[in-house]
Amino acid sequence: MNIAIIGATGYGGVELIRMLAQHRGVKQIDVYSSSKHNTMLSDMYPHMKDLYNEILQPLEAADWSAYEVVFLSTPPGISADWSETIAKHTKVIDLSGDLRLKNSATYEDWYQRESAPETLLKEAVYGLTEWNRNEVAGTSLLSNPGCYPTAVLLGLLPLAGKAAIDPSNIIIDAKTGTTGAGRTPSAVTHFSEMDGNFKIYKVNEHKHTPEIEQALDMRTGENHPVTFSPHLVPMTRGILATMYVPLTSGTKSGHIEELFHQAYDKEPFVRVRREKAFPATKEVYGSNFCDIGWTVDERTSRLTVVSVIDNLVKGASGQAIQNMNVMLGADEKEGISQLPVYP
Amino acid sequence: MNIAIIGATGYGGVELIRMLAQHRGVKQIDVYSSSKHNTMLSDMYPHMKDLYNEILQPLEAADWSAYEVVFLSTPPGISADWSETIAKHTKVIDLSGDLRLKNSATYEDWYQRESAPETLLKEAVYGLTEWNRNEVAGTSLLSNPGCYPTAVLLGLLPLAGKAAIDPSNIIIDAKTGTTGAGRTPSAVTHFSEMDGNFKIYKVNEHKHTPEIEQALDMRTGENHPVTFSPHLVPMTRGILATMYVPLTSGTKSGHIEELFHQAYDKEPFVRVRREKAFPATKEVYGSNFCDIGWTVDERTSRLTVVSVIDNLVKGASGQAIQNMNVMLGADEKEGISQLPVYP
Amino acid sequence: MNIAIIGATGYGGVELIRMLAQHRGVKQIDVYSSSKHNTMLSDMYPHMKDLYNEILQPLEAADWSAYEVVFLSTPPGISADWSETIAKHTKVIDLSGDLRLKNSATYEDWYQRESAPETLLKEAVYGLTEWNRNEVAGTSLLSNPGCYPTAVLLGLLPLAGKAAIDPSNIIIDAKTGTTGAGRTPSAVTHFSEMDGNFKIYKVNEHKHTPEIEQALDMRTGENHPVTFSPHLVPMTRGILATMYVPLTSGTKSGHIEELFHQAYDKEPFVRVRREKAFPATKEVYGSNFCDIGWTVDERTSRLTVVSVIDNLVKGASGQAIQNMNVMLGADEKEGISQLPVYP
Amino acid sequence: MNIAIIGATGYGGVELIRMLAQHRGVKQIDVYSSSKHNTMLSDMYPHMKDLYNEILQPLEAADWSAYEVVFLSTPPGISADWSETIAKHTKVIDLSGDLRLKNSATYEDWYQRESAPETLLKEAVYGLTEWNRNEVAGTSLLSNPGCYPTAVLLGLLPLAGKAAIDPSNIIIDAKTGTTGAGRTPSAVTHFSEMDGNFKIYKVNEHKHTPEIEQALDMRTGENHPVTFSPHLVPMTRGILATMYVPLTSGTKSGHIEELFHQAYDKEPFVRVRREKAFPATKEVYGSNFCDIGWTVDERTSRLTVVSVIDNLVKGASGQAIQNMNVMLGADEKEGISQLPVYP
Repeated sequence: MNIAIIGATGYGGVELIRMLAQHRGVKQIDVYSSSKHNTMLSDMYPHMKDLYNEILQPLEAADWSAYEVVFLSTPPGISADWSETIAKHTKVIDLSGDLRLKNSATYEDWYQRESAPETLLKEAVYGLTEWNRNEVAGTSLLSNPGCYPTAVLLGLLPLAGKAAIDPSNIIIDAKTGTTGAGRTPSAVTHFSEMDGNFKIYKVNEHKHTPEIEQALDMRTGENHPVTFSPHLVPMTRGILATMYVPLTSGTKSGHIEELFHQAYDKEPFVRVRREKAFPATKEVYGSNFCDIGWTVDERTSRLTVVSVIDNLVKGASGQAIQNMNVMLGADEKEGISQLPVYP
Repeated sequence: MNIAIIGATGYGGVELIRMLAQHRGVKQIDVYSSSKHNTMLSDMYPHMKDLYNEILQPLEAADWSAYEVVFLSTPPGISADWSETIAKHTKVIDLSGDLRLKNSATYEDWYQRESAPETLLKEAVYGLTEWNRNEVAGTSLLSNPGCYPTAVLLGLLPLAGKAAIDPSNIIIDAKTGTTGAGRTPSAVTHFSEMDGNFKIYKVNEHKHTPEIEQALDMRTGENHPVTFSPHLVPMTRGILATMYVPLTSGTKSGHIEELFHQAYDKEPFVRVRREKAFPATKEVYGSNFCDIGWTVDERTSRLTVVSVIDNLVKGASGQAIQNMNVMLGADEKEGISQLPVYP
Repeated sequence: MNIAIIGATGYGGVELIRMLAQHRGVKQIDVYSSSKHNTMLSDMYPHMKDLYNEILQPLEAADWSAYEVVFLSTPPGISADWSETIAKHTKVIDLSGDLRLKNSATYEDWYQRESAPETLLKEAVYGLTEWNRNEVAGTSLLSNPGCYPTAVLLGLLPLAGKAAIDPSNIIIDAKTGTTGAGRTPSAVTHFSEMDGNFKIYKVNEHKHTPEIEQALDMRTGENHPVTFSPHLVPMTRGILATMYVPLTSGTKSGHIEELFHQAYDKEPFVRVRREKAFPATKEVYGSNFCDIGWTVDERTSRLTVVSVIDNLVKGASGQAIQNMNVMLGADEKEGISQLPVYP
Repeated sequence: MNIAIIGATGYGGVELIRMLAQHRGVKQIDVYSSSKHNTMLSDMYPHMKDLYNEILQPLEAADWSAYEVVFLSTPPGISADWSETIAKHTKVIDLSGDLRLKNSATYEDWYQRESAPETLLKEAVYGLTEWNRNEVAGTSLLSNPGCYPTAVLLGLLPLAGKAAIDPSNIIIDAKTGTTGAGRTPSAVTHFSEMDGNFKIYKVNEHKHTPEIEQALDMRTGENHPVTFSPHLVPMTRGILATMYVPLTSGTKSGHIEELFHQAYDKEPFVRVRREKAFPATKEVYGSNFCDIGWTVDERTSRLTVVSVIDNLVKGASGQAIQNMNVMLGADEKEGISQLPVYP
């Protein structure tokens, strides 16, 4: 199997290579960049030295039909064009946010830029694998979920549309490591400013908000805004989302437990803890797992759900490979079943 | 002025010394410990070498009337006895949680141990200085607030009891550095386990919950449970509390801004930011300041309040000295007006 | 292939499982502990939940002949007995330091405890794979190198015994992440004490000193003490050793470069950088690689060699599996060829 | 007393303000910048909000004679002009490296830029206060030492020129927190790249090398190159320098101890530990202290000296204020005697 990665110089691209290198179905991985050419990727990333020696190629020269899958790990705003072009020749997995929202007006509202054409938005399948496996299997154009929505939706979708909860007042307090902000140096992520520091950012304004709402509303058939507050943790990898969900009268622990187990008992990458046994981010470090903890508080009639992922793996490249496996009819776990790196 | 510190070997005690050493009214600081004697405190804390050379003394031998103030920086469960004894001779400031709750049943429920006598609970003044200055000025027995309640209440009290908000559905998502867990090594705070890791703990079970509720209920005249979720951040110092408050219909940004400014414009240690300008923990590192940010979300009719403190200073020893200054009629800022250490 | 791990509750044991789980020749991994029984290892390490469900077993009941290899990942002082017993039935790889030194007096001097019997010391093969491959292949009792000696010796052995350098004045300034100190909480590795802190420890007294000297002296045929200074870095994983080596008159860069390339051009796990391109610890994170940088300073006639490893992988469990592969005649890279996890 | 700071937007400038704000002799602190005007410094540094409200002013408009002292906290290459101009009107303390080396050819060699005029280099007094107090007291143009040289020289000067050591083979392995690299974001100090990572940089090429050699050679009357290797630690503040010094035959511990005590027993900011009791960087965090540990190794006839400072305080702004106090005949400790912030 031959694979191409466009935008391979970012953390998402590099993480794709790390895992594809272990995938037994993959023969060759080519890397493309719109800005850097004739450079070995390992010159930018010495951890790959001698292990991955491909040279960054310009997009213009590529023959996309030579690849079974092309990953787009590009910044927002440029994948619309490329995914349309490439999807004519082969399967495309887009890791940018450009094809996640079905409604172009919502995209333009939150992203503050022009949306991809509506036809493309319609065609693209949202690749939260556990909740959309059949559609993923049948598509040639996959839109990979955002890091926060992956953690949040895996925690909330078992509950959405169920009588046990009230979906109208959900609050999501999410925390991420700094790789979520990408590889470009900035004042916010300068080590001297970020070390020993905890910050909140983009309160009520983060682009992942409508992505979360779209998936929840699709299950409930209703329209409920969520409160979503992202925070930056002084660590490299990991997301922990703490979610507050009002319970309807009479809902008991046992019912919540059942909903989680119904949803995930057969899922290879979602691990549900017993009540009050909460996961920490390092317990999924470097892996494709999503761990979920939860507890019911009778004093406040509120359910707390906590989910953790590695933002670069299940929140990006790992899930993209999981989707690739499903799209190609391969073993869903191939290449991404490594244990977390702990401690 | 002569000062005694009981339980000086913990982080709170050491931080008291750091700031009292700069207090122009303080002549002598003596240190007492129930477990270590005949040891120089600086042998345990080499950062004090040559600067603070006092020897840890046993409590039994002390003449408490020789001190203007005695600080109790002891673990929960032992300050009841000592504060009663010492308060007969001089002013006492108790940094343990033993005297914070007015209701002994609530204490026993959340602390899972026997409460101090009700008479003592009644006598003790709760030292959230900004909101209780007059009582603080008149007492000989001060109970210093907990670290989380300080951050949370400074953020919420300007709103509590006001028509602008609905006090019945408040959610508090709080994050702390590891010094909040004290100086005793444990698996949770072992560096290899905590570095690069973000954790939630004691969900709905943290002792500071009833302390927060008591202060809010006192303002509203009602009884509302809050949801309180503490988290551990891989950093040494600092608390950031993110608080979600439902707004009543028609409440606008300007009204919230006014409430914060009314409350804090004359306060030397609380700094209110303009809307959407959120503080980060490092901006108060090593200082007695509490910085508050906030924003109104019209989509969800919800107010987000963010407050940050240094848990060892405004959340413990700094506020204790602030209270000492008020109790003694000194300049409230003396010894604790240093700028934050940044970066 | 069936594998047993004794002392599986430490970081070394857990790391063995992470990599053996990816080894295509391994069918079953059993775990033994002298202190914990009837507990699932994943109850202590939730990152393994659902992925590795074995129960810790007592050593007494084991049938060692049922295993192709038994790993001893035990604290110093107890592997002598067990390795002797087990080696009668199957191949043993000892990760403790008990069998590394050939001279029992040296052991007792530096370890301050009784040595294993001299016959056992003689029998045990020192498993620095790159420099001892033939002996490793033929042994049933392998002593796995220490973490520091692995980093140091891979950097120095290409030079030892060569005319290019003077072996009599070598200084090694080494830095490690905190997992080198193990899993037991202590004041030194308490997060609040270690975060934002850089420390030196055991100056001139570290047990790895004679291990380094033994290997160097074996190559030079001389006896030279080295200066070895270990330091603790506020990070979880990784060793960087900076080594200062006096050059003999006339030695040029090109000669040094040649020595490194001669030594390692065919080695799968050692990567030599070009002069002045120094590696950082994170570039080998989670992997079995050792990266080496170096530069010649003509002003001082001194060579600086820098080597980095992941202390838990190439410095412990990864190298142990590399040795296992050699001992069993399998592909040396099997199970341990993953790319580093970056960033 | 009125003070001006030029280049106040960097970490050095901000740290000057933190400490000058506590100096009882200082009435007013004005801030100047060549790039930013009409901005409040606290808009860039919210930790100063409400506490320091001055506006950044352009240099052209200044009346330097209105200030008792002007601090130049500017990047290399621009202080030569300004210090010459301003020194005509008042006392100047230059924190850049431009005036530290007496030999302009050496400057141009290591800094790769044109040197300040030799007359200015001659006039400027090197402000390592403990070793140059008399000259500091008499000058109007002070050149403040570099961060590394401060740590290194305070550790080595008690020994330089003494028969106890051989000055010809000194090796300095130094480690710094990231604030040493300043406030401008870069790939090297991007949090995701620096967190959990330990790096070496500028091996044998760091500009502070000739500054160290100049001071040592001045004491020995000889010319000896030193080996100097700087490293980056994943922490914000602090330098730890490990220094390896060959002993002459017959030198004993007691003699070394005596040399350190002779040098520093009367010094308020240098603390000498007893043999083998080594300091860690956090033990001087936020303070002007330099702590020194040491040990003699008879096996190798080598002395190890370890010194720690806070690079922004004793290694920059704190020492600059110490020099200011000496230049003005004030109490040397005024404004900078705070205890370290621990933990």
